[in-house]
Amino acid sequence: MAHIKFDSSKLTAFVNDHELAEIQPMVQAADQELRQKTGAGHDFLGFVDLPVNYDQAEFARIKQAAAKIQQDSAVFVCIGIGGSYLGARAAIDFLSSSFYNIHNERQVPEVYFCGNSISPNYLADLLAVIGERDFSINIISKSGTTTEPSIAFRVLKAKLVEKYGAEAAKKRIYATTDRAKGALKSEADAEGYEEFVVPDDIGGRFSVLSAVGLLPIAVAGIDVDQLMQGAADARSAYAQADVQQNDAYRYAALRNILYRKGYTIELLENYEPNLQYFGEWWKQLAGESEGKDQKGIFPASANFSTDLHSLGQYIQEGRRMLMETVLMIDQPRHDVEIPQEADNLDGLQYLEGKTMDYVNKRAYEGVVLAHTDGGVPVMSLHLPQQDAYTLGYTIYFFEIAIGVSGYLNGVNPFNQPGVEAYKKNMFALLGKPGFEKLGQELNQRL
Amino acid sequence: MAHIKFDSSKLTAFVNDHELAEIQPMVQAADQELRQKTGAGHDFLGFVDLPVNYDQAEFARIKQAAAKIQQDSAVFVCIGIGGSYLGARAAIDFLSSSFYNIHNERQVPEVYFCGNSISPNYLADLLAVIGERDFSINIISKSGTTTEPSIAFRVLKAKLVEKYGAEAAKKRIYATTDRAKGALKSEADAEGYEEFVVPDDIGGRFSVLSAVGLLPIAVAGIDVDQLMQGAADARSAYAQADVQQNDAYRYAALRNILYRKGYTIELLENYEPNLQYFGEWWKQLAGESEGKDQKGIFPASANFSTDLHSLGQYIQEGRRMLMETVLMIDQPRHDVEIPQEADNLDGLQYLEGKTMDYVNKRAYEGVVLAHTDGGVPVMSLHLPQQDAYTLGYTIYFFEIAIGVSGYLNGVNPFNQPGVEAYKKNMFALLGKPGFEKLGQELNQRL
Repeated sequence: MAHIKFDSSKLTAFVNDHELAEIQPMVQAADQELRQKTGAGHDFLGFVDLPVNYDQAEFARIKQAAAKIQQDSAVFVCIGIGGSYLGARAAIDFLSSSFYNIHNERQVPEVYFCGNSISPNYLADLLAVIGERDFSINIISKSGTTTEPSIAFRVLKAKLVEKYGAEAAKKRIYATTDRAKGALKSEADAEGYEEFVVPDDIGGRFSVLSAVGLLPIAVAGIDVDQLMQGAADARSAYAQADVQQNDAYRYAALRNILYRKGYTIELLENYEPNLQYFGEWWKQLAGESEGKDQKGIFPASANFSTDLHSLGQYIQEGRRMLMETVLMIDQPRHDVEIPQEADNLDGLQYLEGKTMDYVNKRAYEGVVLAHTDGGVPVMSLHLPQQDAYTLGYTIYFFEIAIGVSGYLNGVNPFNQPGVEAYKKNMFALLGKPGFEKLGQELNQRL
Repeated sequence: MAHIKFDSSKLTAFVNDHELAEIQPMVQAADQELRQKTGAGHDFLGFVDLPVNYDQAEFARIKQAAAKIQQDSAVFVCIGIGGSYLGARAAIDFLSSSFYNIHNERQVPEVYFCGNSISPNYLADLLAVIGERDFSINIISKSGTTTEPSIAFRVLKAKLVEKYGAEAAKKRIYATTDRAKGALKSEADAEGYEEFVVPDDIGGRFSVLSAVGLLPIAVAGIDVDQLMQGAADARSAYAQADVQQNDAYRYAALRNILYRKGYTIELLENYEPNLQYFGEWWKQLAGESEGKDQKGIFPASANFSTDLHSLGQYIQEGRRMLMETVLMIDQPRHDVEIPQEADNLDGLQYLEGKTMDYVNKRAYEGVVLAHTDGGVPVMSLHLPQQDAYTLGYTIYFFEIAIGVSGYLNGVNPFNQPGVEAYKKNMFALLGKPGFEKLGQELNQRL
């Protein structure tokens, strides 16, 4: 099986060879923090061995549940936010038709996500989409008390009960939650929902290869065995501390080197529209792991060539603080030949008989050189195919890279203390019991 | 009709009152460049008066064409990239169900966009979605030779001819192009496609209220009269140079003040998922207008509360170089009440009987205060409703603001020289006649 390949050959104008050698001891130290579990946040390192160390019985149950849902549901609704949303969304988008809820070649249920915002519009629209059709829901929440998914769960549960009655509704609710405690765990136990586990030692943004991501991904008809195999092979491939041997660590080292030179924004880019949500997943992984203590690379994403016609001007000539990492699919799932036309009004005659993928690849090459010449360091990650194995491999690449990258920059890559700040304010402004004093203070400032 | 309202009251910790007074003469000068057409790029100022100075006969033809397409097509495909894509996409998303191609309350054709990438996957998927259904296409290209839309146009045209025959196909092609010259203009004249005009004096990113945006928007069942009326009223509202009177100019001034203090990234944020593409439209408008000569604010966007669970950590505690501008819809199109439950396992009892919009608004307020306290300056733009009038108003707000903002920062806001760099490289690598020498050079560097 061909593997993904990291290409840093276009960085020569930005990074000297000796810089990689000189940062190697730091990488070694970061690797040790990660592998020996001596670093900050070491309670959340379960993702490192997850691809070879997961609950096989639960894995089998996930596939059985997916098969049942595929049989009894036209629509599958995933309720979750952040790490309980983006991984599954990214994987399903990555591996499906660009229009999978409209035209699904795999004949599986439509899959929608909610509980990932507080928009009543969106939820009302989704209820209309479900309509009178058969549906099931997967509520994904470690605590069961996160505001967004909890609201959506109440609304969807009410619709299930209305349609199927209280008892039958319970058979259409799948709860992915804490192994032992919490609101959702209690409710699932009491009501008899089928349960799956959010592992204790894996943070939300690293959880896509646990039940958190796997159930929705399996329902969408994706081969989860291949997904896990790709991640397992990546685990073997990225086990060494040497940046010359370990592509993921070289990526981590280079982006840290560039960050220290003033390249404070990293753009993750693709040339396939259905990698857009992989970018969103990566933004959480990178931004939430590294953006703390007033430092960290700001993660942004772009879809090319689309955004070459929007952000392209800025990237080429704007303020020089950008670095780019390109995800390039070497072998597209489909290709389209450029049709012949009798005349050559549009000037495309020189491309007749060539394929769109051929053009897409030359666009990529042209962009790499243009941006490099414009002062933007460009790294590339080549993905041989757009399949489940490669996706698993790529997910692991970024997870291990970002873990080491955070340590290299001197932060705890596995916490997210800043996420609580707005929640506390929101609770106070909503009048939640216990937050009265803060509520008074805040209301005076509004 | 209620108007949009710009709120900069939360900037007190970041900008002193006297700073606005002291930048006022520069705003005056920028305003003069714009209104007297004395500034760089003054050939592209048609957007300023467009809302009251457009071709009424063409406007009527747009509505007629839309009505015809609504009658004879199940699918409408818009082919365009950059400014010939994002405006219509943003408007249709802003004003429609979150799932308008799946569940369309307006009973209008499904609307898809293509020619906005070179992905063969995407185009192949789109062909499968169209299937055997009736469809029409709108090719939007000033020159008619831009690679992405030209390729998609060839492919879609071939499908039309195959389905309807050469003559009937021509009645299903709508060409939005140059008034007088160019490849698409010639083809449209020769073949008898219905034609609409990309105005000479309006750049792509400012063209959404011309035929470029209006035809797809009208096909989607949106009231284009209201859209234009909103923009016309905004034109009256934002005609003064005084930042205390002109909200759009105050926004332009404040973001320039903040930029000079080191806030080099601006996040445009929303609390409604179907404003996501408004953010993409804004990113082109701002980034392409201002990102040049090695300067400019880097435009990024986020969808809240979704991204509070991904980018939220970075925004709260990462490197302090972010400013935020929030688009807030005051009155949602739908609201959803939070259902009661017998027990209170999820802890939501204190919200029972309240609506999601109420919670969404408190989240917004809590975030503004949390981010302000975290060192991020936050501005807000309040949109009374999510309707066509308000959208037209908001579009104009940003167009006029970004024009003045670019002048304030000393760039030509209306050119985009950097967009050509990658195209030249791509042509050379594709072996386009005339680019042979560059092709040789580049191939050696790959």
